[in-house]
Amino acid sequence: MLHAEKTLRADVAVIGGGVIGHCIAWEARRSGRSVALIDDAPGQGASWAAAGMLAAVSELHYQEEDLLELMLESSGLWPAFAADLARAGAADTGYLTTPTLAVGADAADRRALMDLRAVQQAHGLQVEPLTVRGARLKEGLLSPAISCALEIAADHQVDPRKLVVSLRELLATHGPGAVTAVDGATGGFAVDERAGSLLWENGRVAGVGLGHGRTVQATETIVANGLQAPTLGGLPAGLHLPLRPVYGDILRLAVPRHLRPLVTSTVRGLVRGVPVYIVPRQDGSVVIGATQREDTVSASEESLTADTAVSAGGVYQLLRDAQVLVPAVSELELLECTARARPATPDNAPLLGRVPEIPGLIIATGFFRHGVLLAPAAAVICRELMDGREDRRWAAMSPSRFSRPETPGHDVPDAIDHQKEPA
Amino acid sequence: MLHAEKTLRADVAVIGGGVIGHCIAWEARRSGRSVALIDDAPGQGASWAAAGMLAAVSELHYQEEDLLELMLESSGLWPAFAADLARAGAADTGYLTTPTLAVGADAADRRALMDLRAVQQAHGLQVEPLTVRGARLKEGLLSPAISCALEIAADHQVDPRKLVVSLRELLATHGPGAVTAVDGATGGFAVDERAGSLLWENGRVAGVGLGHGRTVQATETIVANGLQAPTLGGLPAGLHLPLRPVYGDILRLAVPRHLRPLVTSTVRGLVRGVPVYIVPRQDGSVVIGATQREDTVSASEESLTADTAVSAGGVYQLLRDAQVLVPAVSELELLECTARARPATPDNAPLLGRVPEIPGLIIATGFFRHGVLLAPAAAVICRELMDGREDRRWAAMSPSRFSRPETPGHDVPDAIDHQKEPA
Repeated sequence: MLHAEKTLRADVAVIGGGVIGHCIAWEARRSGRSVALIDDAPGQGASWAAAGMLAAVSELHYQEEDLLELMLESSGLWPAFAADLARAGAADTGYLTTPTLAVGADAADRRALMDLRAVQQAHGLQVEPLTVRGARLKEGLLSPAISCALEIAADHQVDPRKLVVSLRELLATHGPGAVTAVDGATGGFAVDERAGSLLWENGRVAGVGLGHGRTVQATETIVANGLQAPTLGGLPAGLHLPLRPVYGDILRLAVPRHLRPLVTSTVRGLVRGVPVYIVPRQDGSVVIGATQREDTVSASEESLTADTAVSAGGVYQLLRDAQVLVPAVSELELLECTARARPATPDNAPLLGRVPEIPGLIIATGFFRHGVLLAPAAAVICRELMDGREDRRWAAMSPSRFSRPETPGHDVPDAIDHQKEPA
Repeated sequence: MLHAEKTLRADVAVIGGGVIGHCIAWEARRSGRSVALIDDAPGQGASWAAAGMLAAVSELHYQEEDLLELMLESSGLWPAFAADLARAGAADTGYLTTPTLAVGADAADRRALMDLRAVQQAHGLQVEPLTVRGARLKEGLLSPAISCALEIAADHQVDPRKLVVSLRELLATHGPGAVTAVDGATGGFAVDERAGSLLWENGRVAGVGLGHGRTVQATETIVANGLQAPTLGGLPAGLHLPLRPVYGDILRLAVPRHLRPLVTSTVRGLVRGVPVYIVPRQDGSVVIGATQREDTVSASEESLTADTAVSAGGVYQLLRDAQVLVPAVSELELLECTARARPATPDNAPLLGRVPEIPGLIIATGFFRHGVLLAPAAAVICRELMDGREDRRWAAMSPSRFSRPETPGHDVPDAIDHQKEPA
């Protein structure tokens, strides 16, 4: 159908089909809006390498109180969000209330985790110290040489790959015709997002131009395409989206039958100051991750977003540190090494909200390490903005907070913008 | 063509399409014989995870003098074999006269390598000690902390994957119609080798039965299917082929431009007694390997031959030890982790030659770590056997040396054997 038409109309155009874009699209759909979800490789970006830890408590960092509030908000939304998905007929999303065990390797790691616990407690968060013996009664394969263990019952998990697949299926089936996914997979309509440009009409954003003169016209356009957001054409002039790629390597491993379950909790370790986590999945496999690299190891040409090069040093570090916590990791089968770039901002908080003076446009990117956790909150915030409501609690996430205020208006769209603002 | 015919006729039926099977098939073809090469997954077995080191000198092990003679023989054949392939129009086989540097990490490694050198010298082999400074003048990225370095000019390399591809192309094009490759890829004719059984006729092997009643009739049948050899039906009674799988993990890594070339020699290290090698390829990538595991890490059902499970501990060990020798390995891009099982024998020498009293049958398996190096010699030996000549130098490789001599004759073939020996 889309092949014949040059223009697709929807209430909401969501640019970007990762976990964030899918959750926003689903929330918009649930609120009765029609949605076009635009991505030529849905779920293949940062979402593909996300472990899916819903770790508001253990991911607390010093000096990030605004972000903590949003993380706790979204953590609180997750159970209902997951339940609603199941009720709507979603396939398995891998949502599990697996508890989290924070584990230190040496004395300095113990001190760091105990210091952090003081801050966590000051925020009213539950972090319970266990004896090493107590921890090993819960997790028999934990090394006896660990220095400390803390139980964090509130930090759970979801499987980001399963989540995208089930949201995709839900969107495709929930009200036939109402939702149109515009992508190579379902529409045979490949979209080159880099060539895409926002459409402007009477001073407001009115959708997005695709390749070959095709457009999606929408009342609201939501920019949720992660690191690619700044490369979108027709962004408001002066809007500075300071995203940088922070690379992460992630491993997927199969646990031989005689070692199952390897762990029953998500084990988040600090090994000589370096973080590592081991997330047990329902199928008996585990995911190991936590590397953060600001530089790419790509042996070919460098690219801001397309870099999926796995670091040999990163894989080595993950296997080394995971074995310090759970020695049996060396006996697992390595199924997959994957790397992706996450969109980081200068203050580690997302760029989330409206751009002042620009109707029709919402920005939702820069979720860095927290995209999966923050997705339900991002979806609710976007829906409320479309309803005309703005929750002032999230003002600190404003997408224009790094922009110069003295440059109103917007760029003159380039040749790819097929519905130029008269300006 | 094969679809319509139930029987294919060839002078030689080669069972198994790894490096060994392909080299034998090519040598048979060069001698004017028609060849059927039978494999449902050519090149996907042990050959797929072979580094391709032609390392007769550095692979010398104590008490393996018979094997050494065969290795040196094949090492001597390699230059002409590679040149003949090129002359016949082969695509790039990755044959390179890269020298080898044997490197020790600590004092005990130095002692081990120097002790081995004494044996190598006793066999007249050239192994030249370098100072660490001298070694680092040749290889700038070698760690200054190594304990010793020895140059072995005679140990070269080939790319086993490229070798199989080019032999395959040569076989397919060399004399149309004369060579028929029977496999899923080129014939649309899937062969389940496990169901295959040798055909018998008047007391001699006369080919091999495939699935669905199809057969390959041949004057000579060569069993070159690695670990699967003992599972072949209709093997001579009492012929004991004591093959066991020895697993190995291998890594392929891309070297970023600023680190090229990572090494110009093949670096074979001994790191606290554990071997590791770094093989530089022509395209700038490197292959790292050397793990040997007798046990599988497979998380699913165990299988003698189909096990391709990569060991997390193996990958960790390879990355750890390679970094000890060349620290910049941590900055490489990890492209691939692969594992395969190699067919090992009790004395580490191949099962290569005729079975006494059984005309029409040649065994060529059990090449363990040395398949790529030994392939030209195996091909020549098989061709000479087909010519009616037997080189007594290789009597120690007899495939029946582990069999009880008191059981002549052969098994009564099972139902899959469509041309039963009248017995």
